[in-house]
Amino acid sequence: MLLSPRRVIQDTNKTIATVLRGDLKILRKISAYVIQSGGKRIRPLFQYYLGKSYGLDSTQLIRLGALLEIVHTASLLHDDVVDEAEERRSQPTAAKLFGNKQVVLSGDHLLSSGLKYLNALGNPHYMAIFTDALQALSRAELLQMQHHFDFSTSAAAHNQVIDGKTAVLFRAAGALVAVMRGHKTDYYKQDTAALGELFGRFFQERDDHLDYFDAGRLKKKGLQDFTNGIVTHPLIYLIQAANSADRRALKAAWEHTRKTGVIADTGKITALFSKYAIERHSQAQLAKKQTAILNGLARLPGKEPRDVIIAEFQKILAVRGAENPLPQYPKGD
Amino acid sequence: MLLSPRRVIQDTNKTIATVLRGDLKILRKISAYVIQSGGKRIRPLFQYYLGKSYGLDSTQLIRLGALLEIVHTASLLHDDVVDEAEERRSQPTAAKLFGNKQVVLSGDHLLSSGLKYLNALGNPHYMAIFTDALQALSRAELLQMQHHFDFSTSAAAHNQVIDGKTAVLFRAAGALVAVMRGHKTDYYKQDTAALGELFGRFFQERDDHLDYFDAGRLKKKGLQDFTNGIVTHPLIYLIQAANSADRRALKAAWEHTRKTGVIADTGKITALFSKYAIERHSQAQLAKKQTAILNGLARLPGKEPRDVIIAEFQKILAVRGAENPLPQYPKGD
Repeated sequence: MLLSPRRVIQDTNKTIATVLRGDLKILRKISAYVIQSGGKRIRPLFQYYLGKSYGLDSTQLIRLGALLEIVHTASLLHDDVVDEAEERRSQPTAAKLFGNKQVVLSGDHLLSSGLKYLNALGNPHYMAIFTDALQALSRAELLQMQHHFDFSTSAAAHNQVIDGKTAVLFRAAGALVAVMRGHKTDYYKQDTAALGELFGRFFQERDDHLDYFDAGRLKKKGLQDFTNGIVTHPLIYLIQAANSADRRALKAAWEHTRKTGVIADTGKITALFSKYAIERHSQAQLAKKQTAILNGLARLPGKEPRDVIIAEFQKILAVRGAENPLPQYPKGD
Repeated sequence: MLLSPRRVIQDTNKTIATVLRGDLKILRKISAYVIQSGGKRIRPLFQYYLGKSYGLDSTQLIRLGALLEIVHTASLLHDDVVDEAEERRSQPTAAKLFGNKQVVLSGDHLLSSGLKYLNALGNPHYMAIFTDALQALSRAELLQMQHHFDFSTSAAAHNQVIDGKTAVLFRAAGALVAVMRGHKTDYYKQDTAALGELFGRFFQERDDHLDYFDAGRLKKKGLQDFTNGIVTHPLIYLIQAANSADRRALKAAWEHTRKTGVIADTGKITALFSKYAIERHSQAQLAKKQTAILNGLARLPGKEPRDVIIAEFQKILAVRGAENPLPQYPKGD
């Protein structure tokens, strides 16, 4: 039986509540916060329908999806603290609500509770995938710090960060499906892991794209990555495309932002992006990834779950100017 | 063959370096910091000789001890950040050296690298013990925060914190030895786990004792727990013993410290401790625990490893005024 996305989210939330059940008031608060602010549960939904396309067990898929979400949330909590981020999306951050101190420890508690639950599932391959992911997550965050306000960050270096920060949990989802299908050692080499990685990369690059060209979609102010000194693909495209005078101007704006914490003239920067038509170039890059994802999805055996993935992720996959591939996908094929 | 303590520490450091090996500069720095500042490696030493008294495999014991140390260090790193502690013992804190941001993430990286290595050892009971310990550690830190500057913190509540913060990793050492001896489900019920717990509790209570009565031994200023708003046993003893006027004075000093961050008149507080002979009472409590530990050690089968534990921990077990039980232990028995 295939559960509806609504039901998957409900069951995921129930599992999260079970994992995080505890007697401390602060833990109940944090647990409620995690469940309520729970975003779109993209990872659990991806995990569930990917697994269902191979006819795998719903209960186990939901457990693993809930654990991916717990790891993701723990990582966000630690990220909130260290970034001194005042807000994540439109929600007030946990750090602001509960204080840095409690947030670091709550992240630790989330994670350890999740790992305890995971270990009780009794499959060391699951644990291997999760510990790989945890290591990659912290490594990528450290890497990103190393590149903080480094104008010369290369595309390759940024890709490494993307892979560790975002792609890793989607890749893990695909690897977990491979383990459930009986792959004991080569789970990262399976199609589902590659599809997850592709999806995760797209997801982060879309985020980076929207930050420059359609921040309203993320319910946040634009150019946050520029403000926070994080070099992403759109900026790399611009640096590559710009003539030397424009590059110098861009670098001067960057240095000013580094020193003052704010962009002096946002209009000047967006004008540079327009001048070199970076949005269109970025859209084209995203469109290529969309096509690859849709091709990957087309290879999944189960039609019904695959269609739910496409329907559910339509909104995410559709980037203004790069949404063409979606309608071209032969629905119900 | 029984390795010397010096050799155990060397091999532990080698294992830690292997687990934390990475290509990022910051990770190499943190790894070096962890190894260099590595304190007395009490947990690995305890793990090793406890296991050797049952004739268990040296390599595996050292691996597990290194992992206990990694978890302990990750927990200290996160503790440094959240406490805004300016110094831990005489060493500058990692947070001060590397910045809060890197320290939280490095703690995460330490932990995830340790868990990955642990999982590869292929025994889910080890993993169960470590995830239990991690959960207890974060829970205890949150619990301690809940009691922050709470003058009415009970001895029972403080014991819960001690068990989670410190006793848990020594108890884990004992449980790991039980697993290595073949206990699959009842490892926490074995003598070695009980001995570990007892040892861990003593270790923390000794720390709390020295903070009031012999802080020089810890190479730090005294009365830090009072300054930081942490109610420990010596203070609980004093609150229980004091007449109502003295209790009011103590509470007023406590409230003043809460508001200002400093103790107005340290002499006044130490005078109260002297008036009610709290040091002697605290020593007597520690002496009881020492006796229980020595009785537990006496039951260990292997004579040679047991003697090393006693010799190595002589300094730790000997608290001024409470060191009597040690010489009474029939060495070589």
